[in-house]
Amino acid sequence: MTIMEEAKRGIITEEIREVAKAEGIDEEVVRRRVAEGKIVIPHNPIHNPKALGIGKGLRVKVNANIGTSREYVNVEEEIEKAKVAMEAGAHAIMDLSTGGNLDEIRKKLLEVVYVPFGTVPIYQAAAEAIKKYGAIVDMSEDDMFNAFEKQAKQGVDFTVAHVGVTKLSVERLKKQKRIIPMVSRGGSIHMAWIIHNGEENPLYKNFDYLLEIAKEYDLTLSLGDGMRSGAIHDSNDRAKFQELLIIGELVEKAREKGVQTMVEGPGHMPLNHIEANIKIMKTVTKEAPYFVLGPLVTDVAPGYDHFVGGIGGALAGYYGADFLCYVTPAEHLCLPSVEDVRQGVIATRIAAHAANLARGIDVEWDKEFSIARQNLDWEKMFKLCIDEKKAREYRQKRLPLEEERACSMCGKFCAIKIVNKYLEG
Amino acid sequence: MTIMEEAKRGIITEEIREVAKAEGIDEEVVRRRVAEGKIVIPHNPIHNPKALGIGKGLRVKVNANIGTSREYVNVEEEIEKAKVAMEAGAHAIMDLSTGGNLDEIRKKLLEVVYVPFGTVPIYQAAAEAIKKYGAIVDMSEDDMFNAFEKQAKQGVDFTVAHVGVTKLSVERLKKQKRIIPMVSRGGSIHMAWIIHNGEENPLYKNFDYLLEIAKEYDLTLSLGDGMRSGAIHDSNDRAKFQELLIIGELVEKAREKGVQTMVEGPGHMPLNHIEANIKIMKTVTKEAPYFVLGPLVTDVAPGYDHFVGGIGGALAGYYGADFLCYVTPAEHLCLPSVEDVRQGVIATRIAAHAANLARGIDVEWDKEFSIARQNLDWEKMFKLCIDEKKAREYRQKRLPLEEERACSMCGKFCAIKIVNKYLEG
Repeated sequence: MTIMEEAKRGIITEEIREVAKAEGIDEEVVRRRVAEGKIVIPHNPIHNPKALGIGKGLRVKVNANIGTSREYVNVEEEIEKAKVAMEAGAHAIMDLSTGGNLDEIRKKLLEVVYVPFGTVPIYQAAAEAIKKYGAIVDMSEDDMFNAFEKQAKQGVDFTVAHVGVTKLSVERLKKQKRIIPMVSRGGSIHMAWIIHNGEENPLYKNFDYLLEIAKEYDLTLSLGDGMRSGAIHDSNDRAKFQELLIIGELVEKAREKGVQTMVEGPGHMPLNHIEANIKIMKTVTKEAPYFVLGPLVTDVAPGYDHFVGGIGGALAGYYGADFLCYVTPAEHLCLPSVEDVRQGVIATRIAAHAANLARGIDVEWDKEFSIARQNLDWEKMFKLCIDEKKAREYRQKRLPLEEERACSMCGKFCAIKIVNKYLEG
Repeated sequence: MTIMEEAKRGIITEEIREVAKAEGIDEEVVRRRVAEGKIVIPHNPIHNPKALGIGKGLRVKVNANIGTSREYVNVEEEIEKAKVAMEAGAHAIMDLSTGGNLDEIRKKLLEVVYVPFGTVPIYQAAAEAIKKYGAIVDMSEDDMFNAFEKQAKQGVDFTVAHVGVTKLSVERLKKQKRIIPMVSRGGSIHMAWIIHNGEENPLYKNFDYLLEIAKEYDLTLSLGDGMRSGAIHDSNDRAKFQELLIIGELVEKAREKGVQTMVEGPGHMPLNHIEANIKIMKTVTKEAPYFVLGPLVTDVAPGYDHFVGGIGGALAGYYGADFLCYVTPAEHLCLPSVEDVRQGVIATRIAAHAANLARGIDVEWDKEFSIARQNLDWEKMFKLCIDEKKAREYRQKRLPLEEERACSMCGKFCAIKIVNKYLEG
């Protein structure tokens, strides 16, 4: 039985208990929301990761994407990225490898990753189709479903399925006349397949079969976002919402079958589109957990997209997004390095924490920090920093000379010291 | 005559014309808003900087703080910071020096800074009081006003005056019981002076005299924010709003006298407080230009405060803040380096641009960028990047091998290439 099926029967599973404890929420509330599909706990018993809740009323979570490309295959580096991402506080890891021995890479990563582990099986189906048939579009329906089943069997906790890229949404996309029609790799594979073969997307047409696979392994489905906007100009358009409407129907089907499901979101999106996007998504999916990439609030800052995505992610989290997919500084430019991964996770954790604070969650962390600041208790502050090492390094660069408890910016002009003397002394 | 006085008489000055042209707005609209005090153009004829408009309907602008501390005095480095900040796109520079020969440093900086140049004269008054009397609180009223006049005479375009730190707001602050009562250096100097001397803040009591000085040099006053919150927990509280109410009255006085005035804002503030803060500020000041520091949306990320302030700044700009004071990664830890200054400016420019896009300004920039992306026109993209050098460096790190126009993340799986082939080909 899946966690969702157990929850529907009123059972508080071990995972539900762990999530409730970690979030400081009543177990029964978590159970009910899992049963309703408003919280997911991606947890394939074969992998058995740390229990992580994503969804209504919980902390905003952070996902880090890693993985080889067809051009750069260095498995040790990807393992290092996974470890660094988890150390930096990523709540989940997705392996998006497209180069090298994909099964072997996944196996090695699953051995070190102790948080929920996600994949995009269509990448493997596509990579194999190139080898087998010479073209992605010649893959068979079985090739697609087999990729999902193989990966679930290996222990993957959640997988992306681009079920909303269908004949209908592709038609809407054509009429949309976007600047950049599509930036989702998985989406473009399905779109090309649909056009080339003149057939409906098998993952949509035979969604019930996908649900059977998911159910067998308690694989959480992440219904993605082939139509996500890749340009500010293309944000919140008809193509995107067409896909969302299709996905909304499939979320209900999945819930009926007891399969945990979340929904993916954009993409490139100006600040003024974020609130509406999230409210509409939450309405048409009846509060499915929302997994957003960024959103990136401008197109023009490659090299800083971890930050651009952090601005959008903070706002998205505040308005109700549940799960932020990080972006690294290398986004749009090249495969990220280990340090890029670290920077991406930290930026996204800051965004998630800013959203949590705005929702009234984890306010004690900042309160404790500020009490330490008022006391000029540097050791305590460092220990509470989101990146302790970096903060210590900065302070060491220019240590204060005249007032050792102040900092070298203000020295004797430290407002806190003046205030302590006059206001309180 | 000040620009505001001329504007009141219906005159479109050269500066108004330049601002209107730069912003793509009708000259008459800019003139009227300058006359009403809804737009300021900080411009001391002695310095004669590039005309810069700040306020209603204009692009969100970015200010970079530089300056020596009492502990680290390296004038050449500060000059370098000013140059780097302007190259990176800062619209204004503030010299917050507190160490070394302040007049000499300011003179040298004014020679290289071609954008509006701001200061906090009370720092100089305080530094001199330590030398002269051994204690900041022993400075005389004349010492304070003389600092303003001397700096205006030197060519400073805008100065901070902490006129809202008064007996009344200090009383409210005491009753507030904040975690961190005060983090503003200027604010703490005035507060200490008020308590020590049992007298009202001279800048408040004799505000008319400050206006006379300002009028003589067309010095723009930036009414700051001694009560800004230095902790998320202390955000949007009674002490802050008490100060704002006092400042609102003084804004009206300044407008009557034809003195250009803007108002400063927080500080540390959770995402969910930003909209209300800005709407209230805009209401009680009848739409004075709003100059915000950050806001910083969490306390716990020293080392990343440029990013933390960027999240808050983007949202603040979207809701109506006009002028973002950058924060560097060194904030709260030490005096920033040249590279910290550059990172601070770029992060804040990204935030300002995200806000502009959300207000419908400069959308063509992103549109042009995305067209170049769709065409995989890398040269064009690099030229449109907010930091061209950084983007080029990243792409060079791992150049694509199999598909030279793609990037090394996706290679043959480049969605844009697949889409071009199937959707459009």
